[in-house]
Amino acid sequence: MNHELAVEQANAHFYRALAELDIEAMEEVWRHEDWVVCVHPGWPMMTGWAGIQESWMRIFENTKMMNVSPEDVSVRVDGNVAWVSCIENISTFYDAGLQSSYAQATNVFQRVDGAWKMVVHHASPLPVPDDWEGAKLSEN
Amino acid sequence: MNHELAVEQANAHFYRALAELDIEAMEEVWRHEDWVVCVHPGWPMMTGWAGIQESWMRIFENTKMMNVSPEDVSVRVDGNVAWVSCIENISTFYDAGLQSSYAQATNVFQRVDGAWKMVVHHASPLPVPDDWEGAKLSEN
Repeated sequence: MNHELAVEQANAHFYRALAELDIEAMEEVWRHEDWVVCVHPGWPMMTGWAGIQESWMRIFENTKMMNVSPEDVSVRVDGNVAWVSCIENISTFYDAGLQSSYAQATNVFQRVDGAWKMVVHHASPLPVPDDWEGAKLSEN
Repeated sequence: MNHELAVEQANAHFYRALAELDIEAMEEVWRHEDWVVCVHPGWPMMTGWAGIQESWMRIFENTKMMNVSPEDVSVRVDGNVAWVSCIENISTFYDAGLQSSYAQATNVFQRVDGAWKMVVHHASPLPVPDDWEGAKLSEN
């Protein structure tokens, strides 16, 4: 399998773990180092796996259901490092209702013992485009 | 010079080009490829040097003066790729007045012919902390 495809799959695993609120799958995705970095949309940066893991647990506990899919995925690989740009199409279901949102993501992966592991996740809020079906549904 | 230090300097060059509204210095900082990526705070992603260069020119034309300094800079290097996390402490002076802001940045650099060149800049808005001097000044 070529590296670009392997990285695209690692990126897809991340979004599947997120959509399925699956902390064990999320643990599989990341490197467990004290220097890995995560920026949730609108949150300040977190550094280190311990805090990042805890943040995912809190997000998963407070979320009833989440649909998220990566779009416009572009992958670059150089040696043991890969960086991915994509747009996150997110629908989150809370007790209080549905929230639809878009985020811009930069994800960095590092190849360790043959497996691509996430070392940076930076997601930031984007305006919801007018022609987005999810946005229309949430207005009805 | 070790690679971490060289990357930290390349990152500093980026913020100096930004603070000095210097398009030639900005051209020096970046790889000029059609796949490089730039996310200005709150903007949708741009791909390709041509559009990114144009965006910097527009930003520089519409800005009277800008103070920006990177803080909490952390650098990781693996082979010919490096990624930097930092907080951007930004004061922008327009004709209409002063705007103070903070942004979270992820910058990716690639080593080409011995020089570290920017290939990803992702900056996203952060809340201004209460104890920030710049924020206090702008309120007076």
